[in-house]
Amino acid sequence: MRSKFDEQLELLKTRLIRMGALCEEAIANAVKALLNNDLALAKKALEADVEIDQQEREIEGLCLKLLLQQQPVARDLRQISSALKMITDLERIGDQAGDIAEITIQAKIEAAPETKPIAAMAEATIKMVTGSIDAFVRQDLELAKAVIEYDDVVDELFIQVKKDLIRLINKDAKSGEFAIDLIMIAKYFERIGDHATNIAEWVEFAITGRHRNGVGK
Amino acid sequence: MRSKFDEQLELLKTRLIRMGALCEEAIANAVKALLNNDLALAKKALEADVEIDQQEREIEGLCLKLLLQQQPVARDLRQISSALKMITDLERIGDQAGDIAEITIQAKIEAAPETKPIAAMAEATIKMVTGSIDAFVRQDLELAKAVIEYDDVVDELFIQVKKDLIRLINKDAKSGEFAIDLIMIAKYFERIGDHATNIAEWVEFAITGRHRNGVGK
Repeated sequence: MRSKFDEQLELLKTRLIRMGALCEEAIANAVKALLNNDLALAKKALEADVEIDQQEREIEGLCLKLLLQQQPVARDLRQISSALKMITDLERIGDQAGDIAEITIQAKIEAAPETKPIAAMAEATIKMVTGSIDAFVRQDLELAKAVIEYDDVVDELFIQVKKDLIRLINKDAKSGEFAIDLIMIAKYFERIGDHATNIAEWVEFAITGRHRNGVGK
Repeated sequence: MRSKFDEQLELLKTRLIRMGALCEEAIANAVKALLNNDLALAKKALEADVEIDQQEREIEGLCLKLLLQQQPVARDLRQISSALKMITDLERIGDQAGDIAEITIQAKIEAAPETKPIAAMAEATIKMVTGSIDAFVRQDLELAKAVIEYDDVVDELFIQVKKDLIRLINKDAKSGEFAIDLIMIAKYFERIGDHATNIAEWVEFAITGRHRNGVGK
């Protein structure tokens, strides 16, 4: 029974790694599409959303099977229930990468100095997604904490982007549309950071049995 | 067999009406919370998202049961598969109402003339959600078409909100943060309109067998 559970848990981790990789790829494609105004790549980021939704359903099924058939307790139970929550945030990350791609498709954003911090936001959020999944797979509490702290970097970048673009609009109303589109995209990256933070918090819970928002206390 | 299917289809419609009503309530609470800076109500809109997600899973299960047990064909099959797609858009609408509520909670938006068109966007999108679900329940092709056309009203309002707020930021950078939050909220309402449009397009497909984006052709 026990070893069967470990086997299935390994499978679950492999599936989570794949779903996380899909999200990272969607973010990377969305920002590349944005910076190079590459509509084909933007469409690819949009399509990835469908595959990510499918992954969520499959992993959810795997988690439910594990819960029902193996009736895990304590830390094993926390790992499965955390995974169930994590995939919801991964799915939202896929949504947001798609939202970014959609703005790129509709808006035809030109390369501009203002897009530089957006690239930094993309890099930071990809790092957070990778870290949060790795933290679960390796049950690495320190890495989970590091991901949660790293969200401040994303929030700082978002505040900076907003300031820069407000200044831009204030100077020149004609660039307003362009600036608003970029702010919207920055907002989606900020949300991706929030979701990666949620994932890391569930990893903390899986390991410690305590969730900083009070769950399981 | 046949009457059993009709019975289950009625149940499906009842469930869709309830899920739609939850989404409309979430939108209404999110905008009321925004206009009255009512944080308790904003939290309620956020919490509704969880219930809406649950509804999606249950209705999805009902649809799959119908597909497997009844093996419907032709228009019956289209109705079930359309319902399967519709709940994905309803779920996203719940997400976006929650996103709006979150900005209200974080930003403490004061009542201002700029919030007036936002209220209009909320009213318009609620009307679209109600209409799209009614169109499915009554299999009303004209109503579905009307919902799809009505999205132009929402898009127009969004363009207007953007213009007004760009002008505001251009005049006075100090109101930039406030303006950006409002633009973000307006963007979420614009997305809600898109999702209601998707729903109405699936209703068209359920009735006619033709989807304007080419599905089923």
